[in-house]
Amino acid sequence: MKPTQEETLKVAKNAFSLFQQGLATGKWQPFLDCLTDDFVFWFPVGKYRGRNEGKEKAAEFFQYVSQLYPQGLTVNLERITSNETTVVFELNDEGLIRGEVLYRNRAAISLDVRGEKICTYREYLGSDGKFSQDYNLVV
Amino acid sequence: MKPTQEETLKVAKNAFSLFQQGLATGKWQPFLDCLTDDFVFWFPVGKYRGRNEGKEKAAEFFQYVSQLYPQGLTVNLERITSNETTVVFELNDEGLIRGEVLYRNRAAISLDVRGEKICTYREYLGSDGKFSQDYNLVV
Repeated sequence: MKPTQEETLKVAKNAFSLFQQGLATGKWQPFLDCLTDDFVFWFPVGKYRGRNEGKEKAAEFFQYVSQLYPQGLTVNLERITSNETTVVFELNDEGLIRGEVLYRNRAAISLDVRGEKICTYREYLGSDGKFSQDYNLVV
Repeated sequence: MKPTQEETLKVAKNAFSLFQQGLATGKWQPFLDCLTDDFVFWFPVGKYRGRNEGKEKAAEFFQYVSQLYPQGLTVNLERITSNETTVVFELNDEGLIRGEVLYRNRAAISLDVRGEKICTYREYLGSDGKFSQDYNLVV
């Protein structure tokens, strides 16, 4: 049975809220529990640039993000769009890279939902924020 | 009266199709006619990086993009998500920079609809495509 847009939104919003908690606190397990075993994520820059596969790789990646922002990364959600299988979150974020350099950016994160879980994560960067010119160097 | 998601989708899809035509042919007037006078666009890199305001600036920008891809830029639409006021297009694109260097990327373009027109354009880059590492240098 095809899921409704409402059901898909509910699953994705819950996962996104746990994602925000992960970014803020470095505790990723609740978010990782929302991912399918064959989870795929796309990231724009750095050593995870491009397509990455598997939940283990995801755990490694999100841990790495938290090491980069030891005091957390604050995400402000700007808007949500969706269809029956995908939900896109537009946001701005802010944090201190290695606790020192202010990072501020805009991003769009697109999540595909399968059943009660997230099977794909695609991140796109607005890259117009403060210090984002150096983003490629530090991530 | 608040527009429905369906009405918003219709306006944005029409504008996006004219945007694709602009990228392919360099003829931007039909797309520019879809924009409000106070149109705002956000772009991630290069000299239009950040927030840009006004229809005139938009005309200049899209002309500039066509100069960069004199043989056109081909856009393949991957998915569309929406709400009552915003439609997000996820896509991959491909073209020859200055007719020479292959450029291939993924992007998300978010359009805000007001009435029958587009009032905001936000572009986000996936930056994982071929040669996109050099993107900051050439745009």
